[in-house]
Amino acid sequence: MKFVTAERNGELFVGVMKENDEVVDLRLAEQAIDHYATLPKTLIECIALGEAFINKVSEIVAWTKEHPSAQYVYPLESVRLLAPIPRPLKNIFCVGKNYVEHAIELGSADDIPKYLMLFSKVPTTVVGHEATVLRHEHVTNELDYEGELAVVIGKKGKGIKEEEALDYVFGYTIINDITARDLQQRHQQFLLGKSLDTSCPMGPWIVHKSLIPDPNRLHIETKVNGETRQKANTEQFIFPIETIISTISRGMTLEPGDIIATGTPAGVGKGMKPPRFLQTGDVVEITIEGIGTLRNAIGE
Amino acid sequence: MKFVTAERNGELFVGVMKENDEVVDLRLAEQAIDHYATLPKTLIECIALGEAFINKVSEIVAWTKEHPSAQYVYPLESVRLLAPIPRPLKNIFCVGKNYVEHAIELGSADDIPKYLMLFSKVPTTVVGHEATVLRHEHVTNELDYEGELAVVIGKKGKGIKEEEALDYVFGYTIINDITARDLQQRHQQFLLGKSLDTSCPMGPWIVHKSLIPDPNRLHIETKVNGETRQKANTEQFIFPIETIISTISRGMTLEPGDIIATGTPAGVGKGMKPPRFLQTGDVVEITIEGIGTLRNAIGE
Repeated sequence: MKFVTAERNGELFVGVMKENDEVVDLRLAEQAIDHYATLPKTLIECIALGEAFINKVSEIVAWTKEHPSAQYVYPLESVRLLAPIPRPLKNIFCVGKNYVEHAIELGSADDIPKYLMLFSKVPTTVVGHEATVLRHEHVTNELDYEGELAVVIGKKGKGIKEEEALDYVFGYTIINDITARDLQQRHQQFLLGKSLDTSCPMGPWIVHKSLIPDPNRLHIETKVNGETRQKANTEQFIFPIETIISTISRGMTLEPGDIIATGTPAGVGKGMKPPRFLQTGDVVEITIEGIGTLRNAIGE
Repeated sequence: MKFVTAERNGELFVGVMKENDEVVDLRLAEQAIDHYATLPKTLIECIALGEAFINKVSEIVAWTKEHPSAQYVYPLESVRLLAPIPRPLKNIFCVGKNYVEHAIELGSADDIPKYLMLFSKVPTTVVGHEATVLRHEHVTNELDYEGELAVVIGKKGKGIKEEEALDYVFGYTIINDITARDLQQRHQQFLLGKSLDTSCPMGPWIVHKSLIPDPNRLHIETKVNGETRQKANTEQFIFPIETIISTISRGMTLEPGDIIATGTPAGVGKGMKPPRFLQTGDVVEITIEGIGTLRNAIGE
């Protein structure tokens, strides 16, 4: 199952993708079945329902196959996708330098972390697939991309053991961890350089974990204007997803809807010789195996 | 005006302190006046109303002087204070090393920042006045206190100029930026060491800006078990509040209810020779001129 948050005729809704690339409006379909909708209006609240949500969606999807209707099943091109979680309830967690070659391209072998590096991006950075990423030319001269696999937490937990960590995952999505390199460096702590408005494209959807047998073995590729810049596999993670979740949750409670970007591979603009930063008009596409492609253009 | 979020008979309410240390339940008082309540249920939503909120509160307080009633005016000791904003809508912003002597006590003169250092604490860290701060003995051996003045943003803004920055402030409160020094150091970026559950005591209330003529000139003092550890004045800020707000908002939209902790003075446990970290049973009290005292004990 692939879950979206989308807009149609000015209304936001939570939807699930069908195999033929149609979108089911979950609450409207539920209303058609039961005469009233019980599902919450936001995906983050749906995720918090746990297995009950997945069971309900299975029922709804099965029913819509028998009862197709344009009232609650739309062609994908007739809706506008937002980020699947348009407004997270806390900053997005981000792992820094989680691929050896990326740590080296931004410094040297001394920069390969021995312990998890964790920073965050504010919720106001989030935009969806195909949304414009602002160039912020009066604030930064070094806007850069970072293609990343992101984990969406499905249930509350603290002190989560590595061997049970994936039980706490709801699903996976793609994040472009847009970074102002000059601010990142000048301010030492990364928060400011990572938190410019529109600097967290996310989507196009969240893929339920049942469709991703091994999240630590996914091909990931980033293109700028069609040219491949990053090409790697999440099996190259220094800290696999289980370690990330376990480390974060040692003394901190993770909650449904929390988002953890797992770090970016080598090939960012700053790592090139000479560096090549993002300019207005550039198009960044990040493709992750089993998830899809997140595409955003840089604009004013 | 001093605003609280408090609990009485199992119900949360937004209140304002009277001069005699009584608390007015704003929605119940409004109901008594108008037969219905228009004010929102959370302080963060009230703050977002801007001047209309302050005007309404002035009316309510004036009216309760003429119409005292135990139905909506309570003795302070009969309620339990929560953090004034118990669940911020994003991580709490924190300024690092904003006092010269503190930067030096944790390193050397080389550590005095030339540019604002900004990191964050997750919303799940927030607890109120008199709440227990967990010792987290299985996670850290170096739990430390940091007394700080915190700014609460009152209206949305981006690209805010220094000269208009204080117009964007709603008020001020006290934060104890509890820090696991070992995690802070080991993980390089500060987020993990700053985000253990219960590591952001906040309160006891938010003092409206009209009562704080100059936030960059306030005495601040932290005691542990009655012994003074930090004693300073916010006039020693490296980056005054106007600069902090202007720098953060250059490319990032600030929103009502955003909280910015302005950094801690010299005198933290790690800076002592030998270091003295917090242990179960310790009581930390932070007093800021014009605001009050935030007190929390360390417990299991």
